[in-house]
Amino acid sequence: MEIVRTLEELRAAKKNMKGTIGLAPTMGFLHAGHISLVKRARQECDHVVVSIFVNPTQFAPNEDFAAYPRDLERDAALLKEAGTDLIFAPMDEVMYPQGYQTYVTVEEVTKVLEGAMRPTHFRGVTTVVAKLFNAVQPDKAFFGQKDAQQVAVLSRMVKDLNYNLEMVVCPIVRDRDGLALSSRNTYLDETQRKAALVLSRSLRKARSIFDSGERSSKAIRAAMEDVFAAEPAAKVQYVSIADTETLLEIDHIKSQALVSMAVYIGKTRLIDNTVLGKPDESLD
Amino acid sequence: MEIVRTLEELRAAKKNMKGTIGLAPTMGFLHAGHISLVKRARQECDHVVVSIFVNPTQFAPNEDFAAYPRDLERDAALLKEAGTDLIFAPMDEVMYPQGYQTYVTVEEVTKVLEGAMRPTHFRGVTTVVAKLFNAVQPDKAFFGQKDAQQVAVLSRMVKDLNYNLEMVVCPIVRDRDGLALSSRNTYLDETQRKAALVLSRSLRKARSIFDSGERSSKAIRAAMEDVFAAEPAAKVQYVSIADTETLLEIDHIKSQALVSMAVYIGKTRLIDNTVLGKPDESLD
Repeated sequence: MEIVRTLEELRAAKKNMKGTIGLAPTMGFLHAGHISLVKRARQECDHVVVSIFVNPTQFAPNEDFAAYPRDLERDAALLKEAGTDLIFAPMDEVMYPQGYQTYVTVEEVTKVLEGAMRPTHFRGVTTVVAKLFNAVQPDKAFFGQKDAQQVAVLSRMVKDLNYNLEMVVCPIVRDRDGLALSSRNTYLDETQRKAALVLSRSLRKARSIFDSGERSSKAIRAAMEDVFAAEPAAKVQYVSIADTETLLEIDHIKSQALVSMAVYIGKTRLIDNTVLGKPDESLD
Repeated sequence: MEIVRTLEELRAAKKNMKGTIGLAPTMGFLHAGHISLVKRARQECDHVVVSIFVNPTQFAPNEDFAAYPRDLERDAALLKEAGTDLIFAPMDEVMYPQGYQTYVTVEEVTKVLEGAMRPTHFRGVTTVVAKLFNAVQPDKAFFGQKDAQQVAVLSRMVKDLNYNLEMVVCPIVRDRDGLALSSRNTYLDETQRKAALVLSRSLRKARSIFDSGERSSKAIRAAMEDVFAAEPAAKVQYVSIADTETLLEIDHIKSQALVSMAVYIGKTRLIDNTVLGKPDESLD
């Protein structure tokens, strides 16, 4: 496994790659969710590239860019073990050199949910992922369903900008107790960690009444609110029941709907989701 | 030579290409300027792809999108003769399908000159060129110096978005009388065509006094204004003397400066330019 830090090194390394390339873009501090992307890429592609870059443009000034956990040495060991061929871990000045002024914007699907709460977030995500796609030129790109809106936004970008690659979306990975893995879980103390289980509990509740035949978003939402009411340490920012592509809210579910949420546990903001009408191995 | 009209056909055609790919993006209705790009690509690359697409997003509502001249049959004959391997001529609905919502924006260098006169123009250019780069994945891309700001904007985009390709900028091609070739020259009647020579005449004047040692933009501009004053049919929209990368106006020229202009001859808007301090085979 090779680690490269500049575009020149990346290009040199790519020259030796014959066959298909799979890319898993990450911000590092890897957990089993990230590793599941790498293993899937290992199965589907001849070469596996993982990028590690804590991308400043997707954090707002009041967010945790500086505090975001970083540990390249540990990440590299995990990635080697999982079958990674190449780590691209650029410095900030490689990705955003002086005079930088170009952005990729997906206009509609970024306006709701996470985008409504974090207005500059997705412009940062689409820009950095476009840059990684351009530099690595992968045949397949691997993302986790955990960031459901990110997946919807990037799928739209790939389609609109004619990227010659396939998006592969991998299921959410959860701890045994049901908490969706996230690098931000490291911020939770023991009590908060227990309170955080309310997210997956509310999603299971939604799946169970949907599976019993309920199709009204209002009714599903009410049932989820009962679950949250029983956990006063959780402060719900939003719960959404939306179209899986446009992410616009829907009242009556025809075949599928994305149920997603953002919830504060103390100062830590957690997100989670499931797609109703579709198997979810992480919750079923 | 093959002509493809969909992304699927393009991908299939690309599969048969081993070695380097050169791309010349055009809006069709080709003239010798475009053909010079194709010939340069033929010299430098194993495969030559030319795109023909009159891109709606780079025209403002009041501009000549509908009237813009189109002649695919003639273009195809010229391109075959010049050594093109593949023409990519997508339909509008292939490039901008329903639900389209993604744009690439270069923020600073698009604010001046053509960008100041045509506020949405460069967003359309950068978006469509990003799409063509993503779909074709060329090793080199060929553009004409005629659209000097386009070259500056796209060079910035390629650098900022880490496109794994080389920009090749080819000299302006002029008719014997000095008029820079443009698909829009077809709008000029015989009298207007003669009046249009004032653009290249003013650029020659600028080069000649620069070469005599003049470094003051004010003095160079005054000399050019004298040239325009002698041609009342020409209505100058702007004359700029600017830094070649940022395109910001400069008062005193150190080594190089881009002299560029937009001039109305009747209802036809023409642009032209030269780089002072650099050989210009089209004018010297």
